[in-house]
Amino acid sequence: MTLIADTEPTVFETVESEVRSYCRAWPTVFERATGSRLFDEHGRPFLDFFAGAGSLNYGHNNPALKRPLLDYLGSDGITHGLDMSTTAKRRFLETFRSAVLEPRGLPYKVMFPGPTGTNAVEAALKLARKVTGRKTVVSFTNAFHGMSLGSLALTGNAGKRAGAGVPLTHTTQMPFDHYLGGVTPDFLWFERLLEDSGSGLDHPAAVIVETVQGEGGVNVARAEWLRGLADLCRRRDMLLIVDDIQMGCGRTGDFFSFEEAGITPDIVTLSKSISGYGLPMSLCLFRDELDMWRPGEHNGTFRGNNPAFVTATAALETYWRDGTLRDRTLRRAATVEAALAELGTEAAPRGRGLVWGLEFEDGERAAAVCRRAFELGLLVETSGPRDEVVKLLPPLTVTDDELDEGLGILARAVRHTA
Amino acid sequence: MTLIADTEPTVFETVESEVRSYCRAWPTVFERATGSRLFDEHGRPFLDFFAGAGSLNYGHNNPALKRPLLDYLGSDGITHGLDMSTTAKRRFLETFRSAVLEPRGLPYKVMFPGPTGTNAVEAALKLARKVTGRKTVVSFTNAFHGMSLGSLALTGNAGKRAGAGVPLTHTTQMPFDHYLGGVTPDFLWFERLLEDSGSGLDHPAAVIVETVQGEGGVNVARAEWLRGLADLCRRRDMLLIVDDIQMGCGRTGDFFSFEEAGITPDIVTLSKSISGYGLPMSLCLFRDELDMWRPGEHNGTFRGNNPAFVTATAALETYWRDGTLRDRTLRRAATVEAALAELGTEAAPRGRGLVWGLEFEDGERAAAVCRRAFELGLLVETSGPRDEVVKLLPPLTVTDDELDEGLGILARAVRHTA
Amino acid sequence: MTLIADTEPTVFETVESEVRSYCRAWPTVFERATGSRLFDEHGRPFLDFFAGAGSLNYGHNNPALKRPLLDYLGSDGITHGLDMSTTAKRRFLETFRSAVLEPRGLPYKVMFPGPTGTNAVEAALKLARKVTGRKTVVSFTNAFHGMSLGSLALTGNAGKRAGAGVPLTHTTQMPFDHYLGGVTPDFLWFERLLEDSGSGLDHPAAVIVETVQGEGGVNVARAEWLRGLADLCRRRDMLLIVDDIQMGCGRTGDFFSFEEAGITPDIVTLSKSISGYGLPMSLCLFRDELDMWRPGEHNGTFRGNNPAFVTATAALETYWRDGTLRDRTLRRAATVEAALAELGTEAAPRGRGLVWGLEFEDGERAAAVCRRAFELGLLVETSGPRDEVVKLLPPLTVTDDELDEGLGILARAVRHTA
Amino acid sequence: MTLIADTEPTVFETVESEVRSYCRAWPTVFERATGSRLFDEHGRPFLDFFAGAGSLNYGHNNPALKRPLLDYLGSDGITHGLDMSTTAKRRFLETFRSAVLEPRGLPYKVMFPGPTGTNAVEAALKLARKVTGRKTVVSFTNAFHGMSLGSLALTGNAGKRAGAGVPLTHTTQMPFDHYLGGVTPDFLWFERLLEDSGSGLDHPAAVIVETVQGEGGVNVARAEWLRGLADLCRRRDMLLIVDDIQMGCGRTGDFFSFEEAGITPDIVTLSKSISGYGLPMSLCLFRDELDMWRPGEHNGTFRGNNPAFVTATAALETYWRDGTLRDRTLRRAATVEAALAELGTEAAPRGRGLVWGLEFEDGERAAAVCRRAFELGLLVETSGPRDEVVKLLPPLTVTDDELDEGLGILARAVRHTA
Repeated sequence: MTLIADTEPTVFETVESEVRSYCRAWPTVFERATGSRLFDEHGRPFLDFFAGAGSLNYGHNNPALKRPLLDYLGSDGITHGLDMSTTAKRRFLETFRSAVLEPRGLPYKVMFPGPTGTNAVEAALKLARKVTGRKTVVSFTNAFHGMSLGSLALTGNAGKRAGAGVPLTHTTQMPFDHYLGGVTPDFLWFERLLEDSGSGLDHPAAVIVETVQGEGGVNVARAEWLRGLADLCRRRDMLLIVDDIQMGCGRTGDFFSFEEAGITPDIVTLSKSISGYGLPMSLCLFRDELDMWRPGEHNGTFRGNNPAFVTATAALETYWRDGTLRDRTLRRAATVEAALAELGTEAAPRGRGLVWGLEFEDGERAAAVCRRAFELGLLVETSGPRDEVVKLLPPLTVTDDELDEGLGILARAVRHTA
Repeated sequence: MTLIADTEPTVFETVESEVRSYCRAWPTVFERATGSRLFDEHGRPFLDFFAGAGSLNYGHNNPALKRPLLDYLGSDGITHGLDMSTTAKRRFLETFRSAVLEPRGLPYKVMFPGPTGTNAVEAALKLARKVTGRKTVVSFTNAFHGMSLGSLALTGNAGKRAGAGVPLTHTTQMPFDHYLGGVTPDFLWFERLLEDSGSGLDHPAAVIVETVQGEGGVNVARAEWLRGLADLCRRRDMLLIVDDIQMGCGRTGDFFSFEEAGITPDIVTLSKSISGYGLPMSLCLFRDELDMWRPGEHNGTFRGNNPAFVTATAALETYWRDGTLRDRTLRRAATVEAALAELGTEAAPRGRGLVWGLEFEDGERAAAVCRRAFELGLLVETSGPRDEVVKLLPPLTVTDDELDEGLGILARAVRHTA
Repeated sequence: MTLIADTEPTVFETVESEVRSYCRAWPTVFERATGSRLFDEHGRPFLDFFAGAGSLNYGHNNPALKRPLLDYLGSDGITHGLDMSTTAKRRFLETFRSAVLEPRGLPYKVMFPGPTGTNAVEAALKLARKVTGRKTVVSFTNAFHGMSLGSLALTGNAGKRAGAGVPLTHTTQMPFDHYLGGVTPDFLWFERLLEDSGSGLDHPAAVIVETVQGEGGVNVARAEWLRGLADLCRRRDMLLIVDDIQMGCGRTGDFFSFEEAGITPDIVTLSKSISGYGLPMSLCLFRDELDMWRPGEHNGTFRGNNPAFVTATAALETYWRDGTLRDRTLRRAATVEAALAELGTEAAPRGRGLVWGLEFEDGERAAAVCRRAFELGLLVETSGPRDEVVKLLPPLTVTDDELDEGLGILARAVRHTA
Repeated sequence: MTLIADTEPTVFETVESEVRSYCRAWPTVFERATGSRLFDEHGRPFLDFFAGAGSLNYGHNNPALKRPLLDYLGSDGITHGLDMSTTAKRRFLETFRSAVLEPRGLPYKVMFPGPTGTNAVEAALKLARKVTGRKTVVSFTNAFHGMSLGSLALTGNAGKRAGAGVPLTHTTQMPFDHYLGGVTPDFLWFERLLEDSGSGLDHPAAVIVETVQGEGGVNVARAEWLRGLADLCRRRDMLLIVDDIQMGCGRTGDFFSFEEAGITPDIVTLSKSISGYGLPMSLCLFRDELDMWRPGEHNGTFRGNNPAFVTATAALETYWRDGTLRDRTLRRAATVEAALAELGTEAAPRGRGLVWGLEFEDGERAAAVCRRAFELGLLVETSGPRDEVVKLLPPLTVTDDELDEGLGILARAVRHTA
């Protein structure tokens, strides 16, 4: 019997900080992963409907990306390149241009602002403020844009904001789509503030928006609302930043989540699944005429993570030369929605493409659903201001069987916790 | 003749943002690298005395790290793990504890704050402010701590600060060692401000310091000065944060750059060479009793970059189980200093271990030296407030011959530009 | 002929700063004044419907106040008393208690925060933040609370805000009554922000409101809206500050403008007409239990302007021992409204008691009306975000004939500029 | 026996806020005052060596000012004039020009920023920031510039700063003269920060200084130090603001305290004794070319306190048409210094003209001295970061006998508390 050994604290408990969180919800030690499945050190499989919080849209260790990565590392390609020109970066830029920018007619320059999402958001803020000479940036209720000081000021969550330890300034929140329950016209308040020189709103440099708020509880903005916002930004001379860190790279179907609405943001941030393999990488895209950076005005040690450029290139070549993945994602949206609707939760399921949210009466119930799902072999997590929304982010490469299996487990977890 | 083709703009010029900088100083396209050498796409070798700004202390594609990395990726180990428990993270934590923390008697918890240095600094600031309930953080003249808003407020460089686009607040600068030319006692001004309730300095939460200011111009703090600072922090109830992002991981000889001074900071940030392979990773270490984080109070998508944990573990096993690397680095310090002293620059060469700075009369001359060195096959870069200091950061694994070769090229570059 | 002399610049033009403004609208030099009339140095009379921006509710040089003031000064009473106890201050405090606080059952302590309105607002902000330990203070669109840095952050006017030269922080604007044209329920947006921990609104320390926004364009809050606001503050644990600097001291009928709504703010600021004679004085009133000041924690050189205490006491004794003035003011409201309604401006006249606003199509027209009124012997001024509202603030002591005369001149000025 | 009545709380205790302070040190109720003496309601006289914290340089109810004031009020002169042109303002401006500006060759425009010192400082800050387009303003250790948010950020005292309730930003403190004990050259630190683009000091808009820090503990800057500061400001393109609110109007001998040093600040703030009669009034003076205000960009309800203009004019006519008062003040400086030196306090007495400080070992002793002096019939108060300095501010019009009497009482108070 080894019961005593079982209760000895692990190195995670004795050495790692109390700040750790997902490991508490999923109390096992993971070892390897392929496609839609993770395996713990005892070989137990888990279907992964969290996908690295959206960083693994093409699944774990996708062979189409793994091969070029191993080849690159094996041939002693540049691993760490700062912002030096490298062959790997060139291939990525050429592929991003030909597979992403040109087909969509997007007039963007590409910046490597450091490998994390918050690096990209901080760079976008700097650029918007530099170009306009203004300071205020508008974000939306329940927005999440990152945890460094500039990004955190845009984030809605009170607990995360409090962590700053200093006041968060130069930002203002506006109501996201649906926030006021449909009783007021879209942008009524925002537009009044802008048109009235006595409103107290200093003219914003920019507006930053997620088309679907992932951390905020899977709140989906209508295409019509996004068009209204883009129009407002144009009329009122504010830059429009779409933070597509979680919803880009095909999560909602199209490569960019804003394509459906037919808008062209001034600045776009990408990260999470841009490398496609879970490797740290992010991009900040902006209209050519906004490219007023002085050399080195923003930088970062790991902005040239070349192995990530290799997998990013492979991902674009594999999935974004045609519309196959996009079409499949859009088709599956209907499957997921139908399955979730049958669960009979109070609020209708919310989502687009392969991001879906299931709102429960409170955070306890949602946590119970996730816990039960884990026991049944499915990884899902909560989101929303009260952690009351179970969020589904399966890999886009999930098979039909896996999708059915996961939805089936979720249904059972909901029933078991009722 | 292909002259016309030569002048066609490259994808770097047409698609990548104007913010790029190193690629302007080193105008070629790099393809692969091993040990101390980079090779461009035409096969031309360059001796690398920049080492990824200190991220490649063990050289490029070091085989001792490469093998376990390829094995790990080949066996479908977890690549992206958020803060889930994984076998790779466990091995790293155990190795970091037994090879780094325990031998030095360091009472630290380990936090994965996101994979870049500025993520670690932002986390350190949050924690210091949370624990103390205060806001002001003191940094030093010519400090560099990162480019996101919280870190940037600690940074001295006026151009980088201006990039913020908003005022940088809640920080105060104090004179770094040697800053006032030795005419005033160390910490006279700082201590007066602290002891005088009418000084206008709000009681600081913390002081953040680099033991050697790399970006600031290779300014080396004396051990005595660091001890004085640690003592001041203790007496005046301020947390001491050592930002060891560039100077840690053996750059100055010891694993931590502050070991020489015999001090134990309250918080330490590590990044750059902690993964050892140029892969994005960072750590925030702090005394056990400061670990007051709530779960998830700070997070980040790429904080669990498991391939980096694998190479970090290999680096610790290979280089930090005994004092061989440390001793070699310290020995080489003398070699480098002697060689640089012969160049007869106005100011004496400055440095410790394998970080050295050579100050020129102005930034133009320093840039000319770097340009000429590049033509002669050596990569070195400038630093300092006027870019007037040529900075040497060779891999710690550089061979004697490579070191001689690099120093020889540098000597020629200095002569050619005189 | 002295035409040349007429064009020589005056000392106002050569020595006084360009910041001067009212003297530009009313281009003459005033010498003396009694009751509702000012006289320029050539003896030309002007009916004063501006009343020192609400500082002369009892008219100019009111004999009932003048006599005790001359007696006090003549007998060498204390003029400048800091916050020493004086007999003049005692009389004022006793009278304020018996004539104002006790009859209304108001549980307030009285603070002398310095003699200007903005001193009182700054003190109110400090107290609210100290008591709650929070930072954010909510103000309303088109609010005006003063010109020092703390008060200015609450003020809506873009031009005045820009004058700060630094970002104005720790404040958030909400829509004033009627601001959104009645299409949304009162406080829908405010309440959503408060109830949603993901809204991004840091829990406010306090809400500051004018019951009628004088500078903002004579925007009148309904009693029902004020009650809703007081209720929201109570339910959501925010202090309610009524800035009664311009609308208090009987301007709307009751001594306090909020009495009509039946609410009891936590903090009240008074200034302008509190001394009754145009002498600088202000008060900050707050609930007994909020009186957590340490001695001297807020101070100011002129907070004990004893001559003002003398006239303030006389004003209270003369006008606030019974309801005569109040009733007359309320009766006259109907007279003014009827007269203004006949002018046929686009928007209906707005006001309460003896503060009324007449909105014109734009600022040019409103300015033309004021200019013409000046030529015809009436002083009125504009307000509102585009200076589009002619504001009437006659002394409360205006006679029926004077009121008719002034309204008649205004009618002519409107016609002449049509 | 009326002992019970004696212990009943007064209206000051039951109605006035706990923030009151001087009334605690001087526990009586004052009724009238003439020249250098205050009388309480029982007729007990007190020699006033505090002079309204420097607001009563010409004594209480000075007949030369009182007569014109009574005449003006008696003839129904304008009391409250906003920034309208009035005959009283014209006389003041003409007299200020001919008696103050022209004889000294000072090229200043005159602004009426509101009647308190902090109004003037806030206006000076706005103007400096507007003109330069920069934000940072440098003040000095132990500075005091006022209690509204902008001024408070310049103030050194920790207790007063804490009262703000929000972080105080956009300011930096430098060491005042003598602060570092003479071991470092003047301005070494300040100049290094300015010349070094890596210092972290954002280029300041302005420097604000008191020539003698009254609240800070009667710290006297040497003329040489002030000249060095003026030179630094000129060379480094920063505006120099002298806050002469307490030390101007003859307190140090000359009308402006900076005349001795032979410098011409860019901006000067005046208040306290400018009206000469204790009536609220302040001025902001600045070089003609800095007068870039838009009309009304800064304003204030009581900026046109015309009775104060009348007494201010009388004071200038009486005391500043020749050098009599100045010379007498300078002569008396020697008398006071000699008398104070005999008291044998540890630190030498500090002062200029008729402002002197006597430093004791701690605040308790200094408070005991003041308390005993009060009992003996002399009003003096403490200052300094630990309230350890007894500050003497007798009226400039004090007679020789009164000066001897006061110094004698002080000597006894020091002996009695030894």
